[in-house]
Amino acid sequence: MRNLDDCAPAPLQTSCKTTPPALVTLMGAGPGDPELLTVKALRALQSAELLLHDHLVSDAILDLAPAQAERIYVGKESSRHTMPQEEIGALMVRLSRQGRRVLRIKGGDGYIFGRGGEEAQVLAAAGVPFTVIPGITAAQGAAAACGIPLTHRDHARTLVLTTGHLQENRQVNLDWPMLARPEQTVIIYMGLGTLPIICEQLVAHGLPASTPAALIERATLPEQRCITGTLRDLPAIAQSAELKPPTLIMIGEVVSLHPVLAGAQLQACMEPATA
Amino acid sequence: MRNLDDCAPAPLQTSCKTTPPALVTLMGAGPGDPELLTVKALRALQSAELLLHDHLVSDAILDLAPAQAERIYVGKESSRHTMPQEEIGALMVRLSRQGRRVLRIKGGDGYIFGRGGEEAQVLAAAGVPFTVIPGITAAQGAAAACGIPLTHRDHARTLVLTTGHLQENRQVNLDWPMLARPEQTVIIYMGLGTLPIICEQLVAHGLPASTPAALIERATLPEQRCITGTLRDLPAIAQSAELKPPTLIMIGEVVSLHPVLAGAQLQACMEPATA
Repeated sequence: MRNLDDCAPAPLQTSCKTTPPALVTLMGAGPGDPELLTVKALRALQSAELLLHDHLVSDAILDLAPAQAERIYVGKESSRHTMPQEEIGALMVRLSRQGRRVLRIKGGDGYIFGRGGEEAQVLAAAGVPFTVIPGITAAQGAAAACGIPLTHRDHARTLVLTTGHLQENRQVNLDWPMLARPEQTVIIYMGLGTLPIICEQLVAHGLPASTPAALIERATLPEQRCITGTLRDLPAIAQSAELKPPTLIMIGEVVSLHPVLAGAQLQACMEPATA
Repeated sequence: MRNLDDCAPAPLQTSCKTTPPALVTLMGAGPGDPELLTVKALRALQSAELLLHDHLVSDAILDLAPAQAERIYVGKESSRHTMPQEEIGALMVRLSRQGRRVLRIKGGDGYIFGRGGEEAQVLAAAGVPFTVIPGITAAQGAAAACGIPLTHRDHARTLVLTTGHLQENRQVNLDWPMLARPEQTVIIYMGLGTLPIICEQLVAHGLPASTPAALIERATLPEQRCITGTLRDLPAIAQSAELKPPTLIMIGEVVSLHPVLAGAQLQACMEPATA
């Protein structure tokens, strides 16, 4: 009785008589290596019925879901969005109200530059129950794989994560004075296309042109490339190496640890093969 | 032949005839919930022979290692370090040279305020092979569990992670002008003891006293508490709630999403029990 009363004002009265909205799981898939999924995310994948996934989620990860699970690709590659954000939200709500359990998969962590917050708001507003599974973000994957600690008592006591893509006004609207402070590590997601502006502005706002910086393409995947330089030469390096998105930018003294740590780690990486 | 030549200049020539140094794995154990371990970390635990672990790693996680695996507790609780950092490094090198595979476990992500970089440097300098497994950091666990996205196009395009503990000079040496910038989310680890100073300084440097802020105690564990307020009232709230470390501080407009998202998520959390 009480349920029917509660549901009465809803536009689709029939939904009260049929199924309650099904749980939507917003899941971060990590940086790419399937081994960097959380145990919780792996379980969600293995029991998935319907997957909504982005461009950055690899086949190796999608293949962990049952073969019969339906897969819907909803994009997005930097400026070209396959499905507008509003439609993704509306689709999740519609599917949930049809009683279909949705597993929404994003690269990295959905609450770090993943628009997970916006999707959670849409679900909450629609009364759709949801849960959130965090994921290893690209910066963490790249740091571990490339031997670049994100913080270090001698180099950086603060870690800053931001994005470098062009805004609607075709500008890179970043807080340059804040990003150019010393003793911090700055990570820029989606900044490959605007790398020359980023390096120029950081130097213009006070960072030494000799500040170590790294570009990590396809972090944690077998084809990962990590290239280091300084704010002065990074744009030229990126161009000659023909780097492509997804490429992460890391700026700060911690990058200077890369040669030593990555060298030592290489042994470790080769260990399983020779053991 | 070539191996013996390579080893000749080493101080302990006998080590060449015995075992090569064994692999050390520096592993982030995530925020507390064992389900938030990465798959890679879980595998490392399940095949561990010798664990070196910190205060913040829960029994539920340590119990995932084989019962016969040796466990060495190396601390540390905020100011009281059970074993000095230098000794931890030396111990890992010694064990590795004895041919013992060490799994070094830290809470969160070892490369985010975990001193993982310092330990990696010690291992690299000693010629000990190592590998690094990233972990979900407390901010990510708390964000997902409490319904507080770390970034959001309407509220925060930048995420800042820093620590609030007292430095050697008994001061909180933070870059206040940088932390007080608008349109960013600021996460402070280990800042519960200095919370009054943090709130006061952020307001003194320009953040509105009405800026939403949250305190998350024991994020992702069953006894987790998430308490919200503003920069004005947070210290009093923390005191009356008798919060204890580990407690994370989150500051920024994204905290205003907590009531709606956490409310909607609650349904989701209850879903498995009723299904």
